Amino acid sequence: MRFAVRSSLQYDVKSPAVFILNVEAAALHRQRIIVESLTLNPAFPIERFADDEGGSRFIRVNAEPGPFHVSYHAVVEVDMIDEAPESIQELPVGDLPLDIMPYLYPSRFCQSDLLGRFARREFGEIEPGHSRVTAICNWIHDHVDYVRGSSDSQTSAYDTMVLRAGVCRDFAHLGIAFCRALIIPARFASGYAWQLDPPDFHAVFEAYLGGQWYLFDATRQAALQGLVRIGVGRDASDAAFATIYGDAEFKGMSVGIDAVDGDAEAEEPTTRAVSVA
Amino acid sequence: MRFAVRSSLQYDVKSPAVFILNVEAAALHRQRIIVESLTLNPAFPIERFADDEGGSRFIRVNAEPGPFHVSYHAVVEVDMIDEAPESIQELPVGDLPLDIMPYLYPSRFCQSDLLGRFARREFGEIEPGHSRVTAICNWIHDHVDYVRGSSDSQTSAYDTMVLRAGVCRDFAHLGIAFCRALIIPARFASGYAWQLDPPDFHAVFEAYLGGQWYLFDATRQAALQGLVRIGVGRDASDAAFATIYGDAEFKGMSVGIDAVDGDAEAEEPTTRAVSVA
Amino acid sequence: MRFAVRSSLQYDVKSPAVFILNVEAAALHRQRIIVESLTLNPAFPIERFADDEGGSRFIRVNAEPGPFHVSYHAVVEVDMIDEAPESIQELPVGDLPLDIMPYLYPSRFCQSDLLGRFARREFGEIEPGHSRVTAICNWIHDHVDYVRGSSDSQTSAYDTMVLRAGVCRDFAHLGIAFCRALIIPARFASGYAWQLDPPDFHAVFEAYLGGQWYLFDATRQAALQGLVRIGVGRDASDAAFATIYGDAEFKGMSVGIDAVDGDAEAEEPTTRAVSVA
Amino acid sequence: MRFAVRSSLQYDVKSPAVFILNVEAAALHRQRIIVESLTLNPAFPIERFADDEGGSRFIRVNAEPGPFHVSYHAVVEVDMIDEAPESIQELPVGDLPLDIMPYLYPSRFCQSDLLGRFARREFGEIEPGHSRVTAICNWIHDHVDYVRGSSDSQTSAYDTMVLRAGVCRDFAHLGIAFCRALIIPARFASGYAWQLDPPDFHAVFEAYLGGQWYLFDATRQAALQGLVRIGVGRDASDAAFATIYGDAEFKGMSVGIDAVDGDAEAEEPTTRAVSVA
Repeated sequence: MRFAVRSSLQYDVKSPAVFILNVEAAALHRQRIIVESLTLNPAFPIERFADDEGGSRFIRVNAEPGPFHVSYHAVVEVDMIDEAPESIQELPVGDLPLDIMPYLYPSRFCQSDLLGRFARREFGEIEPGHSRVTAICNWIHDHVDYVRGSSDSQTSAYDTMVLRAGVCRDFAHLGIAFCRALIIPARFASGYAWQLDPPDFHAVFEAYLGGQWYLFDATRQAALQGLVRIGVGRDASDAAFATIYGDAEFKGMSVGIDAVDGDAEAEEPTTRAVSVA
Repeated sequence: MRFAVRSSLQYDVKSPAVFILNVEAAALHRQRIIVESLTLNPAFPIERFADDEGGSRFIRVNAEPGPFHVSYHAVVEVDMIDEAPESIQELPVGDLPLDIMPYLYPSRFCQSDLLGRFARREFGEIEPGHSRVTAICNWIHDHVDYVRGSSDSQTSAYDTMVLRAGVCRDFAHLGIAFCRALIIPARFASGYAWQLDPPDFHAVFEAYLGGQWYLFDATRQAALQGLVRIGVGRDASDAAFATIYGDAEFKGMSVGIDAVDGDAEAEEPTTRAVSVA
Repeated sequence: MRFAVRSSLQYDVKSPAVFILNVEAAALHRQRIIVESLTLNPAFPIERFADDEGGSRFIRVNAEPGPFHVSYHAVVEVDMIDEAPESIQELPVGDLPLDIMPYLYPSRFCQSDLLGRFARREFGEIEPGHSRVTAICNWIHDHVDYVRGSSDSQTSAYDTMVLRAGVCRDFAHLGIAFCRALIIPARFASGYAWQLDPPDFHAVFEAYLGGQWYLFDATRQAALQGLVRIGVGRDASDAAFATIYGDAEFKGMSVGIDAVDGDAEAEEPTTRAVSVA
Repeated sequence: MRFAVRSSLQYDVKSPAVFILNVEAAALHRQRIIVESLTLNPAFPIERFADDEGGSRFIRVNAEPGPFHVSYHAVVEVDMIDEAPESIQELPVGDLPLDIMPYLYPSRFCQSDLLGRFARREFGEIEPGHSRVTAICNWIHDHVDYVRGSSDSQTSAYDTMVLRAGVCRDFAHLGIAFCRALIIPARFASGYAWQLDPPDFHAVFEAYLGGQWYLFDATRQAALQGLVRIGVGRDASDAAFATIYGDAEFKGMSVGIDAVDGDAEAEEPTTRAVSVA
C-alpha cells in the first residue's frame, strides 16, 4: 500500500538550540520512500545520521532564535510481510543474533528486570511464539486504560503496571518490558498510523521472532498494516520525534497520513504477523 | 479458645538505646489476658502506653549497653465474633465514624492513592461487603508469591504490585491499599498466629465493615480463629514489634503459640467473618 | 494579633458525594476564634469532628448533585509563643510523650526511613535544637526550587529529594522527613498565611521541641507569625482542605487573610521560635 | 604499563543455560592484548561478538547442567592517554558525533531526565570541561557512602541520589546520570583495577570530552592509570560480566590484576585526564 504522510512542527526558539529530529519515514527494504521533502524554515543546515540497523533517520539542526518550522511530506510504499502467526516462533536465546541481545536488557522506561515474576506468572504458561506476544498485547489492552494526560514523559512501565493508565507510548513500554522479561527481544517503534484518531505520531513496539522484527500495538487504535515506521530504539528515549537541547517553546504540530491507493479500505486492528524489518 | 503465647527477643546493645516494644497481646473485650508476664533482663524500667482505640500496648525502655533480653509469656482467651460473611456490609463513607476516617488515607507502605484505578477495575464490580474483601485476599493470594527474603523493610504495596512477591507484611499492605482505594477503612494488625509454620510474628489486616474491624489474611498461612492480636496501626510503621533508637544488634528471637484447650483441632484458613475488635 | 480569614470553595457535584472539609481555623489555647461563620450552599447538614490533640476541625457533608459552595469567615486572635530559639532543645526519644511517637514514623509522603543517611550526613553534626530544624529549612530553601506545577498530589519527599522542585506542600514534606530521620517528631500543618502572595492555603510543618510544637516554613514565603493554623497530621493526607468521595468537579476557590489590627506591619520570615500549640 | 589480569567464575548449572560473558580485556588501540587465554570447563563451544565502537568482547555459551568454570588470563599493555585536564573541553551538542548521541539519553539505571534540575543547580555554574566531570566525581565521593551490601542489582541513580550509599556500580551510574543531565555523553565501563582492595571487577565511567572518552572513578578506590578496561555500555545492563538465561547457581569467583613491570609503583587516584578509547 501507498501512504502520503506529513508532519509539521512549530517552535519558538528562544536561544540557540540543537534539535535532533526523527520524523522521516524509515528507509527499509519493505518500506520504500517514493518521494519526500523535508523543509526547514529558516533553512538551517542539516546533518544526517541513519541507524543502519533499524532504519531510523535522524537530522541534527543548530537553530537560531526565532520561529522555527519543520515540515515533512512523503509518499511511502509499504510492502509488509503479512503472515499467519501460528508458524512464527520465538528464538532460543542461544540462537539470537548477538547484535540483538541489547534488546533483551532493561532500559529507562522498560524495567524488564523488575517485571519478570509477573510476566512469567501471567504469560509463562502460554505457548511461545507470535501468539504469546499477541496475548501480551491483549492483556495490556484489557488491563490498562487509554487515558490522555494520565502519564507524562517520565512515566515508565513500572509505573504503568501499578497506575493502569497511559497513552500509546506507555502501552508500548509495557509490552516491551514484558517481552524482555520473557527473553523475547523487543524494541520501541514510532510511526505514522493510518486512521489513528485523532491523528498523531503513534508508538508501537516490535518483537524479534523467527528472525524478524514483528510489529505489535497493544492500544489497538490503528491497523498495523497502515503503519509507516519512523524510528526504533530501546524505548522512547531513542525514538523521540524531537529532542531539543536549548530553550525552544513548542508552539504546535500536525500529523497526517492518507492512503494513496484509491481503493484502500479501512483495516481492522490485526493479530496477523506483520513486519517491515 | 485459650492460647499460650510467648516471644523472646535478644539484643546486644552497643550504646544507650531506646526500645519501643509491642509484643504483648492486646487487651480487648473479646481478647482477655488470663495471665501474662513480661521480663526484661536486665530489668530496665518500663514506661507503658496503650492505644485505647486499637488496644495496642507499647512499652518504652531505655536500655544500657550489654546483652538485653525481652521475654513475654501470656495465656489469652479469645472469644472472636465468628459470623456468616454474607450479611456484613460496607458502610457508606458518610456513615463511617469520623475517627475511622484516617484509615482511608494512604500511608507509607499502602499507597492507596496510586492503586485506585487498578482496585476499581479489579474489584469495583464485586458486590460490596465482607466477601469483597475476601475477594481482595483471594486475588493477592493468587497473584503474589509468598517468598521469604523477597522484600525488605522498605518494600511498599506499590512495589509488591509490580514485583509480585513478598511476605505476610507485604500481603497485608497490599490488602490495606486495595481496601482504602475502594473506600473501605483498613489497618495493619500484628499477632501471634497459631499453627503458623515456621512460628513467627504474623501480619494480617483488618477492614472496617458493618461497624466492626474484621480480620483478613491474604497469605492463608494460618487460621484467623487462631490469631492473638498484638498491635494495629496504619501500616507496619505503627505496629512494629520493636523499634529501636540507638545502636543495638539483633541477636535472635523465638515466637510460639499453643492452644491450651485440650481438644483444640487444627483450623483451616477461613473465609468466615471473624473479629476481636 | 488578630486576623480576618476567609475561604470559598466552589464545586459542581455530579452525583451524591461525601466531602471531608478542613478549612476552619483550629481552636487552640493560643489561637482563639473570635467570630466565625461557615456557610454551605445548599445548606447540607454538617457532622463535626475535632482532633483533640492538634485542634484540627473537620466537617463531613453529604452533598447532593448540583452546584455546591462552601464559604468560611472568621476573626482569629493568635497569641503565639515567640521565643529566642537558642534555648529550645530537642528531647531525647526516651523523654518524648508516648502519644508523640507516631510523628517519628514514616508516612505516605515523608519516607524518613529512606532519607536517614542523607539527613544524618547533612544535619547530623549540627547542634541539636530549634536551630537545627532551622538549618533543615535553610537547606530546603537553598536546594529546592519553588516552582508552581512542578509537583502533584502524588509527589513525595523521596521524589522532591531528587527532582529538587516543588510547592509549599513538598517543602513541608521534605522538612518533616528530615526531622523524623533525625528522631525529631514532626507533623504537617495547613493554614491561612498572612501576606502570602498569591493568596492560597499554605502548608508548613511543626517540629516537637522542648515539649511544644514549633512552626517552621522552608518556603520562607510568609511570616510564621502571620499564620492561622487550620489542620495538622502526619502529612498532607491527614490535613487536606477537602477530601471528596464521589464525583464532584472543582470549579474554583479563593482564600484571604488580613490583619485586623490597624497598625500591623509586614513581618519578615522569622527564625525565632514560634508556636501556637 | 603491562598488567597481568585474571578472573575465574564458578557456577553450578542446574538446567541448560545460556551465558553471555564479558570478562575479556577490551582490544583497543591503546590497550593491546599481549597474550590471553579463556578456558571453559567443560569446553562448551563459544560464539564471539565484539562491539566495534567500545571494544567490548562478549562470548555466548550454551552450558549444560553440571559444574561450569570460566577462567581468563591475559597480559595487557595499556598505553593510556594521560593529559593535563585543563585543556580538555566539553563539545557543544551540535558538534558531537551523531553516533555518540545515545549516550546522552537516560537509561535503566541512569535517569538523567529526572536528575537535571539538581545537576544544573550543583554543577551548572562550574566551568565546562574535564574538570567539571572531576567536580561531579568529587561531589559523589563526598556525598555518597561506599557501603558494601547497601544496594542491589536493581538500584538506580535515582535511588542512590536519595539513599546516599552504594558500591562502585552505583557511583558510576550517578556520575553518568549527572553528565548526561548536563549534556555530556557518558557511559558505563567495567574493568580490572590494579590495587583495588579487595580485588574485584570494578565499575567506572567514561565521559566524552574533546573527541575522546575519558575515564572517571568517583569511588577513588583505585588509580585509573591501573585500569584494564573490559566492557562499556549505556549502564550496567550492557556491561555485566555475566548475564545468564537459565538456572545456574553462582558458586564463587576470583579476580586479580598485577603490574608486570618490575618497577611499577603504586599510583594514587588521579585527576589527570586519562583515556584508552
